[in-house]
Amino acid sequence: MKREGNEEVDQDFAAKLAAHLGFEEEKVNHLFEKKYLAWNWGEHEHLLRFDKEISHIERGTVLYEKDGAFEMVLGFPKIRRAMVLYPTLEKQFSGLKTVAVEEKMNGYNVRVARINGDILAVTRSGYICPYTTERAKVKLNLSFFDDFPELVLYGEMVGPDNPYVPKEIYNIESVEFYIFDIREKNTGNPLSTARRREILEKYGFFQVRSFGEIPLETAPEEIAKIVRELGKIEHEGVVIKDPEMVLPPVKYTSSRSNCSDLRHAFKFYNESGRDYMLSRIVREGFQAVEWEESEADFKKRCMQLGESILAPLRESVRSVKEGQRLYDEVRIRVKTLKTAADFEDYLKRLGVDAIFEPPLPAGDEYLIMVRKVNKSTNDKTQAIWEGELW
Amino acid sequence: MKREGNEEVDQDFAAKLAAHLGFEEEKVNHLFEKKYLAWNWGEHEHLLRFDKEISHIERGTVLYEKDGAFEMVLGFPKIRRAMVLYPTLEKQFSGLKTVAVEEKMNGYNVRVARINGDILAVTRSGYICPYTTERAKVKLNLSFFDDFPELVLYGEMVGPDNPYVPKEIYNIESVEFYIFDIREKNTGNPLSTARRREILEKYGFFQVRSFGEIPLETAPEEIAKIVRELGKIEHEGVVIKDPEMVLPPVKYTSSRSNCSDLRHAFKFYNESGRDYMLSRIVREGFQAVEWEESEADFKKRCMQLGESILAPLRESVRSVKEGQRLYDEVRIRVKTLKTAADFEDYLKRLGVDAIFEPPLPAGDEYLIMVRKVNKSTNDKTQAIWEGELW
Repeated sequence: MKREGNEEVDQDFAAKLAAHLGFEEEKVNHLFEKKYLAWNWGEHEHLLRFDKEISHIERGTVLYEKDGAFEMVLGFPKIRRAMVLYPTLEKQFSGLKTVAVEEKMNGYNVRVARINGDILAVTRSGYICPYTTERAKVKLNLSFFDDFPELVLYGEMVGPDNPYVPKEIYNIESVEFYIFDIREKNTGNPLSTARRREILEKYGFFQVRSFGEIPLETAPEEIAKIVRELGKIEHEGVVIKDPEMVLPPVKYTSSRSNCSDLRHAFKFYNESGRDYMLSRIVREGFQAVEWEESEADFKKRCMQLGESILAPLRESVRSVKEGQRLYDEVRIRVKTLKTAADFEDYLKRLGVDAIFEPPLPAGDEYLIMVRKVNKSTNDKTQAIWEGELW
Repeated sequence: MKREGNEEVDQDFAAKLAAHLGFEEEKVNHLFEKKYLAWNWGEHEHLLRFDKEISHIERGTVLYEKDGAFEMVLGFPKIRRAMVLYPTLEKQFSGLKTVAVEEKMNGYNVRVARINGDILAVTRSGYICPYTTERAKVKLNLSFFDDFPELVLYGEMVGPDNPYVPKEIYNIESVEFYIFDIREKNTGNPLSTARRREILEKYGFFQVRSFGEIPLETAPEEIAKIVRELGKIEHEGVVIKDPEMVLPPVKYTSSRSNCSDLRHAFKFYNESGRDYMLSRIVREGFQAVEWEESEADFKKRCMQLGESILAPLRESVRSVKEGQRLYDEVRIRVKTLKTAADFEDYLKRLGVDAIFEPPLPAGDEYLIMVRKVNKSTNDKTQAIWEGELW
């Protein structure tokens, strides 16, 4: 079934796939045509990727043949945002006595699974990232997959050597995988939070910090306190879960984290999603009312919001005016130079404009600085400095 | 040719229209089908409206039959925004010695023309507003249209009795029409700024303030000064024009005006266009660099931006929490109650949810308060307070 890109689909294969998914064959052909179903490439060309949510199969789901049948690693379920804790938690978790509260870390979402014998790191969109895959193999206790070949780790790659979302705030030297979910292949069914923690502990995995199970009734108040404390150390916020993982989880983030998102978004104002920006701004308005804050605190919030938007914007506008190119400087740490070369190809394939610096030896590994160029904001800003209109 | 809505098109008419516009007949049918060409209704049902820019015919253009032929009142040409004055003016007006600088007023764009014998006020989208039409007849010296039946006035309805954009800042008691352009029917060709001013003066029309013709070379500097002064009195900014009206005009606005736009946009955060919001925010970043401002001034700008966003947002969020509905309270002043009734029907037809209070006599006219309800922001905010997710 090796096929690069989206060429015509083998009709035997389409029929088999349609039968497996319970779709009409015509629908499967349509999905390929629209590129909602797309093949990976290179050594992973036999893996299919759902580039869109289709009939409750999440976007980013990976599907492949195994021993003549099909197997799936399901995508990340989207976690929706509570704008206010009360009455949202009461409504979303109605019927529960307690909710499990866990830290939402600021990193890069990744699934790690054994796929036809190989340990692979799958991105949110369903690509196989060669760098993340190497790091996962280095960092994770792989015996887990011998014992549970049918389970998938859902986690966050966190730390400064993360080329997607590098953060220094967690006191991690390089990168670590913090697991927040374990789910079954094919069904996507999650383990309960207790069972997940038990397994993760047994294999020595890092896991996201737990704030325990909190009575639903006092949750809004207690979570507000937790989130305020997390904000002080620039941490992002929390995910609130049904301990049995039956009801979908809900996220709630700190003002610091909203502002930090905005700082990055406005640095690259022409790349960033308008909805992404707006939801973070509107969130501040709701929190100001929710927390019944004083006028003095409100002034501080206004100043913080204004600066989070304008400071990076001014910095980008000024840099381009002075002839510099805008980029995100990130770093990777690899065992072999082949991984770096594969990662460079991978980014190119995804249309990311990245410049890799020469590798620097670091113990038995290599550090490589990577500059990701933000072409759209660059070009727009430069055009304006050359006299173009908005 | 009376036809309401977008029912099937008379094919003789379509053929005639196609010949007039130089389109294929099929294209004309397609435009009707897509509702890019649409009939007005009621007493104006014989007027066609371009609901989209088609082959350089501006959106909002009105087309109708006159004496067996067609006549057109062309739409408002979109005026693009300079993010920075230098080098934009130099580039956009290259070849000119001077540019004409005029105030950009904050009101409601309207064209006034004689159409088959009637004086009508046409909105930016090409509708005939009964209220604006009555006000135009009351306020304007109509003998202009006897002398120049082929000309169209392009202006701004400004003042507190403007139900679209009410502003108190211009010291106008009710509403006035400030004319900024005169253009020919059918071609849309504009008069030069000098000729326009001469005619407007002759008929005693209000016209937008002129800052004179300024040498292109010193224009960025001089206009920055003008805009700073305008900002101090909360006025919006300027439009910079080729005095001969050959090159397209360019607008440039004050920070105060950006912030005032943002205050209104974030009050109704779920209605407002994302691009509208973003362009006004990004503008602040460019101006901070363009004006090389001190850190103290930059802090002020951040605070102003933050407050312009958060204060109205908090106010809306709080009002809805307290059970109030969000609305824009505006006022109209009419000669006859029929105009008010027609205007109420007109708003309903356009899908605007408006409540008209009982009329209050005011001299030989009536004042009527109108509450325009902002359903989308209302509903979204209320849903969040009822525990819905973002």
